[in-house]
Amino acid sequence: MRFAVLGAGRIGQVHAGAIASVEGATLVAVSDPVAAAAEALHDRYGAAIRTIDQVEASGEVDAVVICTPTDTHADLIERFARAGKAVFCEKPVDLSLDRVRACLQVVEETGTTLMVGFQRRFDPDFLALKAEIDAGRIGDVEMVTLTSRDPGPPPYEYIQRSGGIFRDMTIHDFDVARWMLSEEVETVLAAASVLVDSKIGELGDFDSVNVILRTASGKQATITNTRRAVYGYDQRIEVHGSLGAVAAENHRAARIEVATAEGYTRPPLLDFFMSRYTAAYAAEIAAFVRAVTDGTAPPTTGQDGLMALALAEAAVRSVAEARAVQVAEVL
Amino acid sequence: MRFAVLGAGRIGQVHAGAIASVEGATLVAVSDPVAAAAEALHDRYGAAIRTIDQVEASGEVDAVVICTPTDTHADLIERFARAGKAVFCEKPVDLSLDRVRACLQVVEETGTTLMVGFQRRFDPDFLALKAEIDAGRIGDVEMVTLTSRDPGPPPYEYIQRSGGIFRDMTIHDFDVARWMLSEEVETVLAAASVLVDSKIGELGDFDSVNVILRTASGKQATITNTRRAVYGYDQRIEVHGSLGAVAAENHRAARIEVATAEGYTRPPLLDFFMSRYTAAYAAEIAAFVRAVTDGTAPPTTGQDGLMALALAEAAVRSVAEARAVQVAEVL
Amino acid sequence: MRFAVLGAGRIGQVHAGAIASVEGATLVAVSDPVAAAAEALHDRYGAAIRTIDQVEASGEVDAVVICTPTDTHADLIERFARAGKAVFCEKPVDLSLDRVRACLQVVEETGTTLMVGFQRRFDPDFLALKAEIDAGRIGDVEMVTLTSRDPGPPPYEYIQRSGGIFRDMTIHDFDVARWMLSEEVETVLAAASVLVDSKIGELGDFDSVNVILRTASGKQATITNTRRAVYGYDQRIEVHGSLGAVAAENHRAARIEVATAEGYTRPPLLDFFMSRYTAAYAAEIAAFVRAVTDGTAPPTTGQDGLMALALAEAAVRSVAEARAVQVAEVL
Amino acid sequence: MRFAVLGAGRIGQVHAGAIASVEGATLVAVSDPVAAAAEALHDRYGAAIRTIDQVEASGEVDAVVICTPTDTHADLIERFARAGKAVFCEKPVDLSLDRVRACLQVVEETGTTLMVGFQRRFDPDFLALKAEIDAGRIGDVEMVTLTSRDPGPPPYEYIQRSGGIFRDMTIHDFDVARWMLSEEVETVLAAASVLVDSKIGELGDFDSVNVILRTASGKQATITNTRRAVYGYDQRIEVHGSLGAVAAENHRAARIEVATAEGYTRPPLLDFFMSRYTAAYAAEIAAFVRAVTDGTAPPTTGQDGLMALALAEAAVRSVAEARAVQVAEVL
Repeated sequence: MRFAVLGAGRIGQVHAGAIASVEGATLVAVSDPVAAAAEALHDRYGAAIRTIDQVEASGEVDAVVICTPTDTHADLIERFARAGKAVFCEKPVDLSLDRVRACLQVVEETGTTLMVGFQRRFDPDFLALKAEIDAGRIGDVEMVTLTSRDPGPPPYEYIQRSGGIFRDMTIHDFDVARWMLSEEVETVLAAASVLVDSKIGELGDFDSVNVILRTASGKQATITNTRRAVYGYDQRIEVHGSLGAVAAENHRAARIEVATAEGYTRPPLLDFFMSRYTAAYAAEIAAFVRAVTDGTAPPTTGQDGLMALALAEAAVRSVAEARAVQVAEVL
Repeated sequence: MRFAVLGAGRIGQVHAGAIASVEGATLVAVSDPVAAAAEALHDRYGAAIRTIDQVEASGEVDAVVICTPTDTHADLIERFARAGKAVFCEKPVDLSLDRVRACLQVVEETGTTLMVGFQRRFDPDFLALKAEIDAGRIGDVEMVTLTSRDPGPPPYEYIQRSGGIFRDMTIHDFDVARWMLSEEVETVLAAASVLVDSKIGELGDFDSVNVILRTASGKQATITNTRRAVYGYDQRIEVHGSLGAVAAENHRAARIEVATAEGYTRPPLLDFFMSRYTAAYAAEIAAFVRAVTDGTAPPTTGQDGLMALALAEAAVRSVAEARAVQVAEVL
Repeated sequence: MRFAVLGAGRIGQVHAGAIASVEGATLVAVSDPVAAAAEALHDRYGAAIRTIDQVEASGEVDAVVICTPTDTHADLIERFARAGKAVFCEKPVDLSLDRVRACLQVVEETGTTLMVGFQRRFDPDFLALKAEIDAGRIGDVEMVTLTSRDPGPPPYEYIQRSGGIFRDMTIHDFDVARWMLSEEVETVLAAASVLVDSKIGELGDFDSVNVILRTASGKQATITNTRRAVYGYDQRIEVHGSLGAVAAENHRAARIEVATAEGYTRPPLLDFFMSRYTAAYAAEIAAFVRAVTDGTAPPTTGQDGLMALALAEAAVRSVAEARAVQVAEVL
Repeated sequence: MRFAVLGAGRIGQVHAGAIASVEGATLVAVSDPVAAAAEALHDRYGAAIRTIDQVEASGEVDAVVICTPTDTHADLIERFARAGKAVFCEKPVDLSLDRVRACLQVVEETGTTLMVGFQRRFDPDFLALKAEIDAGRIGDVEMVTLTSRDPGPPPYEYIQRSGGIFRDMTIHDFDVARWMLSEEVETVLAAASVLVDSKIGELGDFDSVNVILRTASGKQATITNTRRAVYGYDQRIEVHGSLGAVAAENHRAARIEVATAEGYTRPPLLDFFMSRYTAAYAAEIAAFVRAVTDGTAPPTTGQDGLMALALAEAAVRSVAEARAVQVAEVL
């Protein structure tokens, strides 16, 4: 499958590397208004530098990976779906639920494959954890505990366009929570603070949040997020059930421990998603290739993107109105 | 200091053992309407079997440890405060905030020492964790994560008199959260389910809850509780701050690991609070002895009992009204 | 059982504390030429200060715990065996195998109970590890790996009288190896160095040694010892068998972990045997009390002391002669 | 750099995969008398199937990776060195020290690059461990502890041609010991048993061995090897020094832990060297490419191969003669 990457920033580079590592996938084109960014992928992977229009018109491109700014996602999805390309889009489809719904409608009409990027579902450890649950090792899932902490906050300009921490960062946890609960969330409670950087608050966003999700049958998930963990990129899942529990540990650059008079020290965590989820990004692209090739539904669909965004929307409203919000209210 | 234990059930036995292990403390009397319970402490520690009235009148008793059913606590506190005994009372003082306040008023008038039993504050690991925070190792506290899971639910009769999971079980976590946050909680959000045993729901209680606490400055704590963890008594604290984080691990009966073709297995957790907090209970009584002897305020006061109960009250209301509850509303 | 402790130094204090914590055991007397040492135990436990002669003659003493310098052990064992007291003696019985044999002969003739102090056999973790082996969890024992490192070397005067590192320090590992192998050792290979302090070499001793033990059926054990581990008192056992392996972890003062930008740090190990083996020392005395009371053989006998010393003797010879030494050569 | 792989068995496949993953390296040819083995690499990587003669004569091949049976290594090294190809050869160069020396002489005369495959030196964790040592974190190295256990024994035919466990399996640990000690070994003590499979003994080999290495300055290393660990491929390094210690942990397929009523279980270890050392094999080939390209000495030389074999030779002799063997005796 011949790929074009649209948007050659940080996440575009991650996906380009993933494509290069997947058998049956080739990066043939890259598009980015920033010449240097596109050239980097050209130099590294031999991808041709093209405009969006050229990619759209090209008969050499089977699939696009959309890594452009969020506010362009929905338009690009529709455009390339209509152009008959398979589409992989980074989350979120859009910050507006209405816009997402309209976009998914277009996709459905074209019959193209749309996969939304929730790479954590492809992490080998998280898959192993989920396999234990599916094998019945912990009985019925009751309580899910998700810990996600970024090593440091993104630039202010990023925050301004991000739609806020719930739609930008927590959205990954919302998706993982849905995956782990295997049941749709009914109610959302959220609390939010500015503890890391007061400027983030001035921009109307938060940097430290906690969320409780509850399903109709009473299963619950909690999510704790902060924009700064000096000890690295903290990514943990813990699921408690009627017969046990299963947890996934953090990753470090090296599995060593140094003992001195001060104690026993293991290295800090991997620094961020590019290193932590390298295998997951590759597996994600491989899953996309398989879905397109086999004509099956991708493992993470536009509907998954919509539902995660709905939970984010509910969390925003929960904070604003200091109350439990029904997901049905925002859908 | 000569002690009488009032109520020789499970927790009364724990405190009797703690008294026996503390230098300067002696168990001289025990009172319990169930003869066999009192006799057990008599046989084990040589404590005289006495009625409540006899203990009250006795010149041989300096302090009482109240381990009777919750609905008798406030009356007994007042009675022994007036009798000039130092009083250690198991949590909670009462299930009603008004009753607690009235009781504390009486205690204040008598000038006696009242300490409320929150043994986790005396656990050596938790103290070491707190010491790291106080030493500035993790900078400013931002997010506290508390996990408390009982190995199995208590008898139905206990549940019926317990005041519900928030007042009975979560109350310990409310106290730990206050201790770790070093700032009073302003807002409480809670979710509750019946997942372990539907009969618990029929009794009007829950068995699986999550709570988010938020202080005025935006610090947050989450608490996750369940009444059944088949892998043992799960007791963890994790505190995240501006410069790092600190966590306390669970305890096991043995620090061994067995490797077989199926994997590497460590033993389940200690089975319950009697074994997990043995050292904490002894340190708690020792702290009580020191406070009474030195005439200083005990480390956990009636006010601490009141505040933890207020958080429980707010949590109950948060679930009932599906909203964030200000602690000021219930106080 | 009424105890006298002979020798109130470091290890004598440990045993006094153990006696105090064991039901059915009372410390009634202490003997030490250093007045301050004896007084410390008098003050702490109410033990009467007595001479060795007085203890020997006393009708109030049922058992003695010998914690005097090594070169007095055998004489005191014989004397108190003849006086009809049960005898608990710290390892080693003597530095000379011939002297040990003669002493054990006397003990046998008196019919008294002699237990030799190998406290590691009573450590709860090591017992749990051994129980896994005995339950067949790891199949047939094949390879034992023992790691013992002291936090720092003892005083030079101690070293001069100690009989050397193999007889003083490794002797504990020799005993543990015999316990874990459940088969007598046939051959000993040892290597020794002076790496910690050249003065130790000048005294004719070593501070860093490795030993391989081999039984007739081919089972093997390795022992690694050093006199200085800045990270604390390192005490590990690992046993590998046909169906798996089992390992015991080190102990720390607190089960906490601090995460900072420098990594994840757990506290150093407990500082030495007094804190690491507190529970073991108490269990050891309790086992002694049981053996004497029930008239059964103690779990660690004079014969165990003899065999561990024989392994030490063989190790000394292996280093001196740069060859594998048969245990039969030294016995 | 254009590579040919000679010998397309298990380790040949590993190296082919490594070559494919290294930038600047291409697999152009493969040679194996077993057609199916060669075809597998042809199909997977597009390598042309060639005879040894054809590879030798080809102008399209810059370097060969020798993965043929051990008894062909030295001849092939000489042949390809003379043909002007850079040579990477799996350990050992030969089972005879004399033959190795002669071969290295030929290599030296041709001036070609010869690198001997000790992949553990390229494992990211072991490199991180070594970096801590080199940075002075643990002070002077004193004691090295190496644990290497295969998941199961190789086929009998393999054992018959292997030169015995010390030359085949322990040789990797001998190399790691030399790397960690940073000083040549002077004395070797070894013990060996047949515990896993008596047929291995009938073939004149052992399956369970322990070795002590000692340098002139007194530094020591221990190696424990067994041919069967049902819990997976056990690969650990621990280095103790004057200021601390550093250890590398084992690898598992997933970093998860399942808690049930039976305890907390992590998965078994990775199954063998192909999965455990994937990254190491790739880094090893990358280092070879760099050395050839830059004209520098490779990180693991023929001399390293010779010295590791000398330690194996000394260990064999130590077992046979039941004594400490000086390395100088065998060199």
